[in-house]
Amino acid sequence: MTSQTRSAAPSAAIELTQELIRRPSVSPEDQGCLQIISARLEALGFKVERLTYGPVENIWARHGSSGPVLCFAGHTDVVPTGPREEWQTDPFEPVIKDGVLYGRGAADMKSGLAAMIVATENFIVRHPDHDGTLAFLLTSDEEGPSIDGTRRVMEVLEARSEKIDWCVVGEPTSTEALGDMIKIGRRGSLSGKLTVHGIQGHVAYPHLADNPVHSVAPALAELAARIWDKGNEFFQPTTFQISNINAGTGAPNVIPGELKARFNIRFSTEQTVEKMQQTITAILDRHKVNYTLEWFVSGLPFFTAPGTLSTAVQAAVKEKTGRTPEMSTTGGTSDGRFIAPTGAEVVELGVINATIHKVNENVRIADVDTLTATYERVMELLLAKK
Amino acid sequence: MTSQTRSAAPSAAIELTQELIRRPSVSPEDQGCLQIISARLEALGFKVERLTYGPVENIWARHGSSGPVLCFAGHTDVVPTGPREEWQTDPFEPVIKDGVLYGRGAADMKSGLAAMIVATENFIVRHPDHDGTLAFLLTSDEEGPSIDGTRRVMEVLEARSEKIDWCVVGEPTSTEALGDMIKIGRRGSLSGKLTVHGIQGHVAYPHLADNPVHSVAPALAELAARIWDKGNEFFQPTTFQISNINAGTGAPNVIPGELKARFNIRFSTEQTVEKMQQTITAILDRHKVNYTLEWFVSGLPFFTAPGTLSTAVQAAVKEKTGRTPEMSTTGGTSDGRFIAPTGAEVVELGVINATIHKVNENVRIADVDTLTATYERVMELLLAKK
Repeated sequence: MTSQTRSAAPSAAIELTQELIRRPSVSPEDQGCLQIISARLEALGFKVERLTYGPVENIWARHGSSGPVLCFAGHTDVVPTGPREEWQTDPFEPVIKDGVLYGRGAADMKSGLAAMIVATENFIVRHPDHDGTLAFLLTSDEEGPSIDGTRRVMEVLEARSEKIDWCVVGEPTSTEALGDMIKIGRRGSLSGKLTVHGIQGHVAYPHLADNPVHSVAPALAELAARIWDKGNEFFQPTTFQISNINAGTGAPNVIPGELKARFNIRFSTEQTVEKMQQTITAILDRHKVNYTLEWFVSGLPFFTAPGTLSTAVQAAVKEKTGRTPEMSTTGGTSDGRFIAPTGAEVVELGVINATIHKVNENVRIADVDTLTATYERVMELLLAKK
Repeated sequence: MTSQTRSAAPSAAIELTQELIRRPSVSPEDQGCLQIISARLEALGFKVERLTYGPVENIWARHGSSGPVLCFAGHTDVVPTGPREEWQTDPFEPVIKDGVLYGRGAADMKSGLAAMIVATENFIVRHPDHDGTLAFLLTSDEEGPSIDGTRRVMEVLEARSEKIDWCVVGEPTSTEALGDMIKIGRRGSLSGKLTVHGIQGHVAYPHLADNPVHSVAPALAELAARIWDKGNEFFQPTTFQISNINAGTGAPNVIPGELKARFNIRFSTEQTVEKMQQTITAILDRHKVNYTLEWFVSGLPFFTAPGTLSTAVQAAVKEKTGRTPEMSTTGGTSDGRFIAPTGAEVVELGVINATIHKVNENVRIADVDTLTATYERVMELLLAKK
């Protein structure tokens, strides 16, 4: 009876995913996730360093001391739940139904973390004396400002001249079936915080006021309609999105004195930051908007040419899933942007991303187990003694 | 000594204004103001009816039983104080400094109420057996929803076939000097609550989302730029203002699923509610916006053609202030909108409105006494036995 019960029980990777989902690690909170992971890595003989900057927690963990360094990278933080009433289950209480695991972070990316850890446990049992170094770079600040997370850890490693040769980022890259897409680069990300200055007043006396909603509307319409470029062989076209807009006192009869908006541009290698900034300020100026604008470059576009790592990842995916993954640069940015510029080959591979950042986020249980086997196979192809 | 002390003391109208300011009657609270006023009217022989609907208190008071009916209308409620730290004095503790009385409601419109009551006391002493009927319609809900206030009392009077022939509303209508402007009508007010429906998503995957900020921007730009009409001899042009706009989760990388906006139109007699609603929905439809829209008609435009009442008010103002008042329909709406449609001539006359709804609201003491004399002169011109 015991063995039957056990055979119906979730796999180690699913159990760990569930344990991590129960921690409500809304960015930049880690809520103990890295403590769980560190304990398991230390049990395998990893040397784990905790690098904490304010509320942001990171670990840099190594097993082995020689090169090459194969690093798994990821994040424990998740985006906010959004409207709780639209969730069919508690977002921080993992629920399995019909072979699918639901919860905030199920796909982005607590299942990816669990797959890495369990794959590593399986690999080290079989290859305790592997070649090179197996490493982990994990952070609790990937969904937030991403300043004190991977970016900062990479600065620490650079100061010590520690290099990563190959990096597998466990972000959810698959679109319809596990392994149908891996990422070999990402578009850049440029953000703006726009404040439009007006003059508050009573709606019945608009000549005494200056409505910032009215003054910025034509500029926003023009920006929303703009085609920036057509992309190129490796990159999708550049896209512009307004993510937040707020003005008004709440009262129905008061013209607001100020409007605040945030926007984000995901840009191909056809753009430069300076060119985009000039375009936007020219549009605002032409519409005579009275504004201040703060810019934030979250990441420049990066691209890893096909090489040892991408070949190994492709082979492992083909072997475990039967699919030949598309090598893509689409989608959001990732912490790969901080790792690639040091010369590392960076490939991203993870579960299906259809529900990330949405309500009722979920992952297929079978995919988590297949991803675990795929990660283990990547380790074998690159670090197992021949 | 006694008479000297008395000559330096505040007038009866200023004393009553102070007494009313001490009652913190933030809309729809009356806080006993109508009790004070009722007692004084009853002492003069008025028949006072209290009409209470939930938290809203109203009085309808009459002196006399024949026509014509000259009614004074006003409200005891005040708008909230706003930031207390910006007040130089306690807003509910009247303070006189350099001939100016400070406090919430000093101008809008507790001094107006006091002037009406003291003018009536003076008039009835001199003309106990006046022609027609002298009446008061006072409410504690003019600054709020205005549903259970004057609107409701007018329904009661209509059901009884009680008519008002002439109505003087004591709202603060003067701009720079007492009596420089009276109102003979007001624009209408139409409000809309717009919800734009989109699909939430990640800024990096805009093709999977539908950004409501982007979809509504061209429609808002068109509405903001639109010229509705040029007004006419008696009315300013119609104006459209967006008072509130909100979309976004706060996160910089999430495309919002919904946008909410509120707008208000102050409209001349060149428009109808139906025409404006059709114009706005046509613009939203043409820009293919997916929306729902709730409408609220706060008041239709009203206009009192020059006649017996406006002639008497103009004459009284000229006599007491030396000024010939401009007959205007500008500014916000007032409870006149509920009284005019019954066929009453409605004229608004009151103190300077420069500080209403602001911190450090105030009224000039001399203006309150002159307004009292002006109201008494209006009564004499219309109701004194010849």
